[in-house]
Amino acid sequence: MPRSPRRGVENEGEAWVVETARALFPLETSGVGIGDDAAVLPLGNVVTMDTMVEGVHWDARLSPADVGWKLAAVNVSDIGAMGGRPRWATLSLTLPRPLDRDWVGAFYGGLAEAFAAYGVALVGGDTTRGPARVAALTVGGTVSRPVLRSGARPGDELWVTGELGRSAQAFLRSECSAEALAWFRRPRPPVAFGAALAEAGLPTAMMDLSDGLAADLHRLCAASGCGALVEPYALPTTGTIAEAVAFGEDFELLFTAAAGEDVAICSLAEKFETRVSKVGIVRGSPVVSLIGLEWPRSLFSHFERESS
Amino acid sequence: MPRSPRRGVENEGEAWVVETARALFPLETSGVGIGDDAAVLPLGNVVTMDTMVEGVHWDARLSPADVGWKLAAVNVSDIGAMGGRPRWATLSLTLPRPLDRDWVGAFYGGLAEAFAAYGVALVGGDTTRGPARVAALTVGGTVSRPVLRSGARPGDELWVTGELGRSAQAFLRSECSAEALAWFRRPRPPVAFGAALAEAGLPTAMMDLSDGLAADLHRLCAASGCGALVEPYALPTTGTIAEAVAFGEDFELLFTAAAGEDVAICSLAEKFETRVSKVGIVRGSPVVSLIGLEWPRSLFSHFERESS
Repeated sequence: MPRSPRRGVENEGEAWVVETARALFPLETSGVGIGDDAAVLPLGNVVTMDTMVEGVHWDARLSPADVGWKLAAVNVSDIGAMGGRPRWATLSLTLPRPLDRDWVGAFYGGLAEAFAAYGVALVGGDTTRGPARVAALTVGGTVSRPVLRSGARPGDELWVTGELGRSAQAFLRSECSAEALAWFRRPRPPVAFGAALAEAGLPTAMMDLSDGLAADLHRLCAASGCGALVEPYALPTTGTIAEAVAFGEDFELLFTAAAGEDVAICSLAEKFETRVSKVGIVRGSPVVSLIGLEWPRSLFSHFERESS
Repeated sequence: MPRSPRRGVENEGEAWVVETARALFPLETSGVGIGDDAAVLPLGNVVTMDTMVEGVHWDARLSPADVGWKLAAVNVSDIGAMGGRPRWATLSLTLPRPLDRDWVGAFYGGLAEAFAAYGVALVGGDTTRGPARVAALTVGGTVSRPVLRSGARPGDELWVTGELGRSAQAFLRSECSAEALAWFRRPRPPVAFGAALAEAGLPTAMMDLSDGLAADLHRLCAASGCGALVEPYALPTTGTIAEAVAFGEDFELLFTAAAGEDVAICSLAEKFETRVSKVGIVRGSPVVSLIGLEWPRSLFSHFERESS
């Protein structure tokens, strides 16, 4: 069964691949290389790359135009999560022969719609033939105050944007709301809000929720050397707690901010018509807890068994 | 039979894909978007992307380490051809399961060697599983005086670096020189020389020779709105004229410069230990001629028949 597009470490095999790369390639001089949502380059540039493979990251539930949109969305989401603004992109498109021109035209259409919505210019790329459709997108942008995953401090408060679990509902349930389905097909990450938050100096740490709060919050806390307490009933979701934290593809922002910034954060959120919810606190103990509950097992876990 | 890695327009199908993209996506404000070796971004940044697919762009004649080296080389070649200096890269690696760790380790090793040779830092990327090995690399760099394909003017002289046809010999002949085989496996594009040439303001137009002089010179002339006369016996090659102009993967530079710059060009070439040859002239008539000969038919043409 195809997996939906998700970033980060897919499984043990991917973790090994990433660690092997980390060992072989020296870190960028800025010290911000492999491992955050996007890489910060000199002179305020930021860059990210995400790939979608047919049959692995999408199936027939996504139209070709949805695939184009989503590929753009997952990438700009990473730029926004650094506090950056996306500007340009390069696309590598591998396509089987005979060429399905309808598919390519519709895919480009969805990609162009998303690029127009997020202010991204396609500046180049490469087209190759191959045994399956593989689309790799690099998105670059600018950032004045990069926000890493590693800046959370004990006492900070934990916030999320939007609603969690919509893609989980769309992917896992036989029926779901039109809104959940729309988000699964065409997520709209709050990129401009992320950039504005960062430019206002509000978040101490930030990342996007691509693998679910359970996995992603553990990563943020590990990078920051701290722990967190999450209040499950504060999580903004119309679904189950498991759907809200243990699936992913939310493409919402998870960020930490000093206590007492509620007014500044909420007024910025209002300006950008972005919902924000305070869902917990950061603490010194390295334990990451969901108050009163165990963290649900990943709803992807039964697809993940691979002999790697 | 697998094709070797080459960039540019592969065939009619790829030309259609590129034209469709060009029609749908607005050009960068700088006016330099899809179509040159690399895209010039604001603030002196330059970016390129090239993809290699197993069974299409390489076969068992390349070791995994060669594939890694070559993927880096084809990309930095594009940066050098703009007069830029490569700085950073992001890698998208699609791998079948079960994971072949030996392959991945060796591939990374070759990539890291090339990155070290060319001063490139790997800053991020994505690893996914998929039905075949697909490696897409984005390389970014800096450029102070970008050199496009479009600046050649009648009266300019036509130059190439290095030796042409080595990859053709390695790919097509049952036996070839060790040097040809080494270049085919681990091409060493003259990137620093290209950047130095550009910084000295010498080339009026420049590109790298990835599809062979016959195809690439036609592109440079079309972009510049001019034609050219090439002296076949001036072409630096130990092989046939067809191998020198009609195969590709030379990853040498093709550039034009005003007449009378021989001393400046040759002294820079000497400094960078790069061979340069003057091979023809640019003229106003749009015809691109090989003096006394017909342009040989592409040595790839019989692999290119696809029902796209």
